[in-house]
Amino acid sequence: MALDELARQYLPEVETELRRAVAIAGGEGLEHLEYMLAYHMGWQGEGAHPNAGGKRIRPLLLLLTTSAVGGDWQAALPAAAAVELVHNFSLIHDDIEDNSSLRRGRPTLWSKWGVPQAINTGDTMYTLATLAALRLQETLPAAAALRCVQALTRACLQLTQGQYLDISYEQRGDLNLAAYWPMVRGKTASLLSACVELGAVAGGASDETIAQLKDFAEHLGLAFQAHDDLLGIWGDAALTGKSADSDLLSGKKSLPVLYALNQQGEFAHRWAQGPIREDEVQAMAVLLEREGARGYTQETAACLTEQALRSLEQAQLKGNAGLALRELADALLNRRA
Amino acid sequence: MALDELARQYLPEVETELRRAVAIAGGEGLEHLEYMLAYHMGWQGEGAHPNAGGKRIRPLLLLLTTSAVGGDWQAALPAAAAVELVHNFSLIHDDIEDNSSLRRGRPTLWSKWGVPQAINTGDTMYTLATLAALRLQETLPAAAALRCVQALTRACLQLTQGQYLDISYEQRGDLNLAAYWPMVRGKTASLLSACVELGAVAGGASDETIAQLKDFAEHLGLAFQAHDDLLGIWGDAALTGKSADSDLLSGKKSLPVLYALNQQGEFAHRWAQGPIREDEVQAMAVLLEREGARGYTQETAACLTEQALRSLEQAQLKGNAGLALRELADALLNRRA
Repeated sequence: MALDELARQYLPEVETELRRAVAIAGGEGLEHLEYMLAYHMGWQGEGAHPNAGGKRIRPLLLLLTTSAVGGDWQAALPAAAAVELVHNFSLIHDDIEDNSSLRRGRPTLWSKWGVPQAINTGDTMYTLATLAALRLQETLPAAAALRCVQALTRACLQLTQGQYLDISYEQRGDLNLAAYWPMVRGKTASLLSACVELGAVAGGASDETIAQLKDFAEHLGLAFQAHDDLLGIWGDAALTGKSADSDLLSGKKSLPVLYALNQQGEFAHRWAQGPIREDEVQAMAVLLEREGARGYTQETAACLTEQALRSLEQAQLKGNAGLALRELADALLNRRA
Repeated sequence: MALDELARQYLPEVETELRRAVAIAGGEGLEHLEYMLAYHMGWQGEGAHPNAGGKRIRPLLLLLTTSAVGGDWQAALPAAAAVELVHNFSLIHDDIEDNSSLRRGRPTLWSKWGVPQAINTGDTMYTLATLAALRLQETLPAAAALRCVQALTRACLQLTQGQYLDISYEQRGDLNLAAYWPMVRGKTASLLSACVELGAVAGGASDETIAQLKDFAEHLGLAFQAHDDLLGIWGDAALTGKSADSDLLSGKKSLPVLYALNQQGEFAHRWAQGPIREDEVQAMAVLLEREGARGYTQETAACLTEQALRSLEQAQLKGNAGLALRELADALLNRRA
């Protein structure tokens, strides 16, 4: 498969670039700051292993885009590091904001070293992301480098806007379906869209191609989140004996839940009465499905997927990387867990 | 006075630029996010008034530099907004990390809207800072704009490195004088140095002048902090009846304290036994002075001030703005409270 082949080629270099970017924060007396960053990236400490830092989907998406528009993926490595660092900065802060003590099975930064150091380490990670993106001026014309830094920073603004909505929704009882999209656009779609924009700019794509690819990534992000919301309630982990992982238990205002709240039926009635207990999870999932939330979410995800793939086709990408990009989209949208 | 005259000219435009920069985070459904940003800036809500956002020292330093090297200060306004936004982003996060419920007499963001929203609003403020700096590409050549964004981002990295040290020092009993300077360089000097660098680059200064001005700002920052540490123990607020404001009470590892810890005398002995009580503050300030900490800190501040002013003279600045820059340095280094 083209995706496997290219991932095997790209990802070790992404990791090298990331390690170089993170090392900038170190130095005499700053060893532990660098250690905390490396811990979060999955390289050091308790539970460190090659996949402890996640799948590096965003750098992969970015580099495949560069290649697929006919550019040199190695020239885009600083951008690939930048998007992964932004993603991880947002995870460090999200984990504090959501009070999550585990991430990918490992204790989160704040649960190990306290909230003050974790906030500050997240801030450090974000400055490293921008510094990585600024290194594009070594491989690209100044105007292209500026465009990339700007696209990345706008995506970061949108991330925080989406996170603002997510936090504020926790205290709101009056949410409806319309509340969902701006949040997901900010939290998931904006950074994926920035990945293809940076990759395409670094690869010298035309503005028309860049617009098509951004449309692809934006819809990919929305479809991905809708699919993720399905898995969060009807996925293997959520249903088969591990109800503790169900989004119904955490009270997440996911697409199926918002759909059902809009219906104002039995599910909405029960939801209004307070948190769902673990022993209710299975029955509530059945109720949600009966009220049409599962079907609606599946249709929505399918429709968004369709739009994403149409935009991808319009961009008429080249060679192995073009195939791999299609495979990556399929893999993201057909996960079972 | 040149400083008053130029401040009256510059600061209203800085405020306009800041409001424009902050408005970018707003929009439909995001009104409260923009409100929180405006609250922190001193524009909105409880206790809002023209000085509630602080003195805007950093934008002033930046714009005076641009003028003093012969440039157009209005072309540097995006940079002036950027440094003030960075400063305020760091204050929002510092207030959480230090558990401070008041800032300039007003409730801090986290104490009004909770830690999750405050972390995220600080992140938003930081993205707005970078976006403001990126607007320099509208008034400067692309290479100069990139240089400015890079200098600002490096300063942000150094801010977080300084803050890392500050937080980690709280739990360390083995600190000595050498620990002080890297922390202060990161927390105070780095952003002031970036202010003059951005101002000078925007004004088209030579690399030699930029280096001299950075040296000025770096020493100004260190001298400012040493002076601030003096005021924190022997200033009017700390001594005359308001011991609650004394740095001795908060346990801050300021320069006089670290000097005395190095002496391993009576002060160090008492310090090692636990937090200083309010009824001890006056006696401990006397003890510190007797052990030479006040004199040492005064000498250090004077020496750093001397170095700052020497570098400023070497830069041979022009006109009213050059005079005003000298006045600003004097004002910062001769405060009494």
